Amino acid sequence: MVKGALIYEGKAKKIYSIANNNNLVWVEFKDSLTAFNGEKKAEMAEKGRLNSLITGLIFNRLSQSGVDTHLKEVVSDKEMICQKVKIIPLEVVVRNVLAGSTAKKFNIPEGTSLEKPLVEFYYKNDELGDPFISDDQALMLKAADSQEELNQLKQKALQVNVLLKDIFAATGIRLVDFKLEYGKNMQGEIILADEITPDTCRLWDMKTGEKLDKDRFRRDLGKVLESYQEVYNRLKNI
Amino acid sequence: MVKGALIYEGKAKKIYSIANNNNLVWVEFKDSLTAFNGEKKAEMAEKGRLNSLITGLIFNRLSQSGVDTHLKEVVSDKEMICQKVKIIPLEVVVRNVLAGSTAKKFNIPEGTSLEKPLVEFYYKNDELGDPFISDDQALMLKAADSQEELNQLKQKALQVNVLLKDIFAATGIRLVDFKLEYGKNMQGEIILADEITPDTCRLWDMKTGEKLDKDRFRRDLGKVLESYQEVYNRLKNI
Repeated sequence: MVKGALIYEGKAKKIYSIANNNNLVWVEFKDSLTAFNGEKKAEMAEKGRLNSLITGLIFNRLSQSGVDTHLKEVVSDKEMICQKVKIIPLEVVVRNVLAGSTAKKFNIPEGTSLEKPLVEFYYKNDELGDPFISDDQALMLKAADSQEELNQLKQKALQVNVLLKDIFAATGIRLVDFKLEYGKNMQGEIILADEITPDTCRLWDMKTGEKLDKDRFRRDLGKVLESYQEVYNRLKNI
Repeated sequence: MVKGALIYEGKAKKIYSIANNNNLVWVEFKDSLTAFNGEKKAEMAEKGRLNSLITGLIFNRLSQSGVDTHLKEVVSDKEMICQKVKIIPLEVVVRNVLAGSTAKKFNIPEGTSLEKPLVEFYYKNDELGDPFISDDQALMLKAADSQEELNQLKQKALQVNVLLKDIFAATGIRLVDFKLEYGKNMQGEIILADEITPDTCRLWDMKTGEKLDKDRFRRDLGKVLESYQEVYNRLKNI
């Protein structure tokens, strides 16, 4: 397969077309780290490689457990071939433990475990700052086609949560929360897209409580790359 | 009936017990106007009276159309006897036309008509600033007992919307949006509580577009009391 033209550049990945193939794209992970809707930025050599490797590992595991993902083939340390999808403009967030914006919004201490996982939608729109939205607002904005589609997204995300919690638990990591993105492929099927990495998850060491995710960057805790490396090391050894 | 002790004072109303009656309360409308979660305040003689009269008129009309409300009897120009309820801590907002916080959140011009009415929940909590919440967050916070209860609230609010739009349309007023509060009475039934007034609705004159509601106070447009009076005059004459 031959890498074609750049068709989209996001904050963390570049998407290229593939010569003579309209169903697939070539995804390259970038070394950029951004937070607070792009207000805080850094370049970190190796970050793209680690996130690509972590996503490859996790998506393959999920796929083995019956989750449909966009990943077709890992082609290098920081590149993968994926199904071309039309991204549904919703960030699907699953929380097992309260942290970040939702803990703050309700003035509930960070680290509070939830009785059951909470699914939230955020509207993917940089100009608006990716606002939190309800199902009815998502339908008003036509971010999804129907309530059934929203229910499907929630169910799929909760299924991923069950699997992902186990994957991380096996490495001594507590899955606090994470963000997923879904897309529709050429056949109109809703499949898991984007990435699953320390950029998109909150991951706390089960013994020490140490943060092993992008909060180290957001909150200037240092050892950002070392933590991403640690997550990868643990995942690849199970 | 004899007015008893003050049992609750809110931003716009005082609630008193009624001697020897545990099922009813005595509600007195205050002349205070507040906005932006209490940050902006004013006293306006007659405001309480007008809002009480308007609520009495509207709740009686809704009741005639089969809506269960807490209103039992209007006892003076600014007082009414109501069923005692335990308020469900959700502001139920219905929007026919976008304005205010939701127009701003999505950068959609104020005045944009919606294809169908949008129902939103806000968590009644002054300390948190009454944040916008999803159904799942409302359940996490135990603001409602179940998804069925939330669905009931939405259905009830949409039914009120149909009736209320007609009531105002008959007076040449466009019902842009409004906020309802529901409570559970001693029998556990969910009934409409609180008030329906220019404090809790956006009301635009159908011909001129002139605002006849609390936005006149929020946005320093002047003629606040005159507008409330105008709404009452129109309502009482149909």
